[in-house]
Amino acid sequence: MNDIKVAILGLGNVGSGVWEILHKNQRKVDSYLGRSIDVKKVLVSDVNKKRDIEMPAEVLTDDIAEILENKDIQVVVELMGGLEPAYSYIKAALKNKKHVVTANKAVIATYGKELRELADENEVEIRYEASVGGGIPIINTLMQSLSANKFDEIVGIVNGTTNYILTQMTAEGMDFDEALKLAQEKGFAESDPTSDIEGEDAAFKLSILSYIAFGIEVSPQDIPREGITRISKEDIDYAKQLGYIIKLLATARRNNKTFEFHVHPVLLKKDHPLASVNNEFNALFVKGNAVGELMLYGKGAGSMPTGSAVLGDVMEIGKRISEKPSVSHANKNGYMSSLISVGEGLSEYYIRFQVKDQPGVLGNIATIMGENGISLKSVVQRGKPGEKSVPLVFITHAVERKNLDKALDEIQESEMINEVASIMKVKR
Amino acid sequence: MNDIKVAILGLGNVGSGVWEILHKNQRKVDSYLGRSIDVKKVLVSDVNKKRDIEMPAEVLTDDIAEILENKDIQVVVELMGGLEPAYSYIKAALKNKKHVVTANKAVIATYGKELRELADENEVEIRYEASVGGGIPIINTLMQSLSANKFDEIVGIVNGTTNYILTQMTAEGMDFDEALKLAQEKGFAESDPTSDIEGEDAAFKLSILSYIAFGIEVSPQDIPREGITRISKEDIDYAKQLGYIIKLLATARRNNKTFEFHVHPVLLKKDHPLASVNNEFNALFVKGNAVGELMLYGKGAGSMPTGSAVLGDVMEIGKRISEKPSVSHANKNGYMSSLISVGEGLSEYYIRFQVKDQPGVLGNIATIMGENGISLKSVVQRGKPGEKSVPLVFITHAVERKNLDKALDEIQESEMINEVASIMKVKR
Repeated sequence: MNDIKVAILGLGNVGSGVWEILHKNQRKVDSYLGRSIDVKKVLVSDVNKKRDIEMPAEVLTDDIAEILENKDIQVVVELMGGLEPAYSYIKAALKNKKHVVTANKAVIATYGKELRELADENEVEIRYEASVGGGIPIINTLMQSLSANKFDEIVGIVNGTTNYILTQMTAEGMDFDEALKLAQEKGFAESDPTSDIEGEDAAFKLSILSYIAFGIEVSPQDIPREGITRISKEDIDYAKQLGYIIKLLATARRNNKTFEFHVHPVLLKKDHPLASVNNEFNALFVKGNAVGELMLYGKGAGSMPTGSAVLGDVMEIGKRISEKPSVSHANKNGYMSSLISVGEGLSEYYIRFQVKDQPGVLGNIATIMGENGISLKSVVQRGKPGEKSVPLVFITHAVERKNLDKALDEIQESEMINEVASIMKVKR
Repeated sequence: MNDIKVAILGLGNVGSGVWEILHKNQRKVDSYLGRSIDVKKVLVSDVNKKRDIEMPAEVLTDDIAEILENKDIQVVVELMGGLEPAYSYIKAALKNKKHVVTANKAVIATYGKELRELADENEVEIRYEASVGGGIPIINTLMQSLSANKFDEIVGIVNGTTNYILTQMTAEGMDFDEALKLAQEKGFAESDPTSDIEGEDAAFKLSILSYIAFGIEVSPQDIPREGITRISKEDIDYAKQLGYIIKLLATARRNNKTFEFHVHPVLLKKDHPLASVNNEFNALFVKGNAVGELMLYGKGAGSMPTGSAVLGDVMEIGKRISEKPSVSHANKNGYMSSLISVGEGLSEYYIRFQVKDQPGVLGNIATIMGENGISLKSVVQRGKPGEKSVPLVFITHAVERKNLDKALDEIQESEMINEVASIMKVKR
């Protein structure tokens, strides 16, 4: 069958991620789709620049016309960022009846309406899952799985930079400047962090979500917003004392016939699912009138998570071109056929013995464990003197279950043991 | 345009939910799809039984042939549960070239392969999002948004009954029998809870997930499983002391070329995202080689959440019948056109004043607040004597922002105030 022919505009962070995933997971992608994704062209500003990723020379181009006027190319993946020239290129691609996938929140928040209409007129799709929440599938979820719901509320932690800073301020007691500096060192904040810390980035994403959830076009400029620069360590401490965590939230909420949209630092009750979303992670919390409360949690940025969402969109378009259902029968072409066995793998184990309270029991058990190659991570022994049976709790380091069973068999032969009361795995 | 013509098999818990959502959200569903979903027939065992929901008499039938042989019906929604006759009816519907949507984990885990092949042969779809995790869109997410990923691990809390019991044992110190009784009283456990507490229900779901994520068909009978009946209060306490929470996890994991699948109670580090999934909630935690860590959290059972997933599937099939893209341009038919204004709504506010440390300040501020109709929920005042400026922190009850601003203007005229250092909303 014919390949799906794709052009990528931009080979920065996300573009490189898309390229890497495509090559790493080629077999899965091909067998899942029943055909390959063939990247025919990649638009870059300098074709001679030295790059980390290997790419056939004929793929690179600095001439957008080579892509827009190439009748073979079916899908244009825009990963340049910023309004121009991305917006013009997307428009031209749609007019030339090419499907478009983009991660560009600024373009979609600003020109979404026009571009969606243009796509409709030209009977192609424009998809932009990666524009909100990076790898988190919030747009597909709202538009597909939850499409029978009316939504009461969409609340998101949609900016990883500010969430990282607030987490450091909350957990480590840093002040804002200190936390921003750390975020920059770790690559979670840009050298000019203005758009993130002033809430502009979050307002772009909220504008997109408002359309997806409520069908309302709100310009990002019209969304009231406040960043995190004025939050002090003191406020974080007082909030904590009162049972709250401070997060920068993008909120879209229905109140009967009116709506509110805003980006603000907000005090969140400690037990709210969003309150434990920390560091660079993002999350979207949805209240639908059928599904109830739903939360999606994951990485909101980075080349691989964002590339994952971009390729998810490309593959959906690929299925449509192939006239396959969107939930197709994964992997039936046998991409897993080389797999061998279903085993148990290594695990740490929690074990509770009930033992006789007499000297030497612990030493005895530990010795048998050691002889069977099982080393111990934690031990708790706490019994009241004189009791006939006291608990003795171990957590092992990672072992094979069969080795553990052998040791337990030996231990159970000993007269000091009343029973092996409990064995449970510890999650890796 | 023509309606999408649907038959529902079974009018129990989930069937009623589907009916309710369809009627409550009809306008959204119609405008989103560009046509209506018309429930032509509902299969019940007794057409004369008194029911809570109103339904035209000609819709109810106790004769499956009226559905299977009705050429108009395009989608059969199977919500009877159990293996038979659900399995036979699904098979017959597919053979008659009707699309099928089902919430039936037992049928899909046991006969998934055969039914998927039968759907392919007949060029129709079989969808079963609701069979795992209720309203949580795990299947669509794995098969669409994350389709470019190879998965390392899928770990889920997929049974609400056991999670409710374990949460009560952990949080309230109940023993198993007590917690089970409470779960039954609250409707989270059935009168015969065996399938849930012995892990059978979770094994069904894991079998489905293993296919979706890895393309591997594992019979639910072959999945090693252990329920929660043997977990004691003591084990929960020891685990807690050592920094762990005990959860019943369904695990599918790749270890190089082998796989492990099992349902077990597992010790989970307190800060793992799954550790804070409490009570009847479910969650699926995914590690993909592109997206990284992703978690989906929501209600795993109940008529409305499950109905939400069922209807999401029906609407996807509806889009396909209409030849609309799966991510279509929501609501462009103006389902929101009656909406009036974008407002701010009521909110609780956190306010930190810096005030002069002198008598009467608190009373003064509280009085002005009261005069403006603002009542106070919490107050914290903690300053060292002699400091020129001490913090005074309030959390208000819900107020309109404009009323708050009026009060703050008056307060700021007072000479006791140095500044309004901070104002933040508290999340509702």
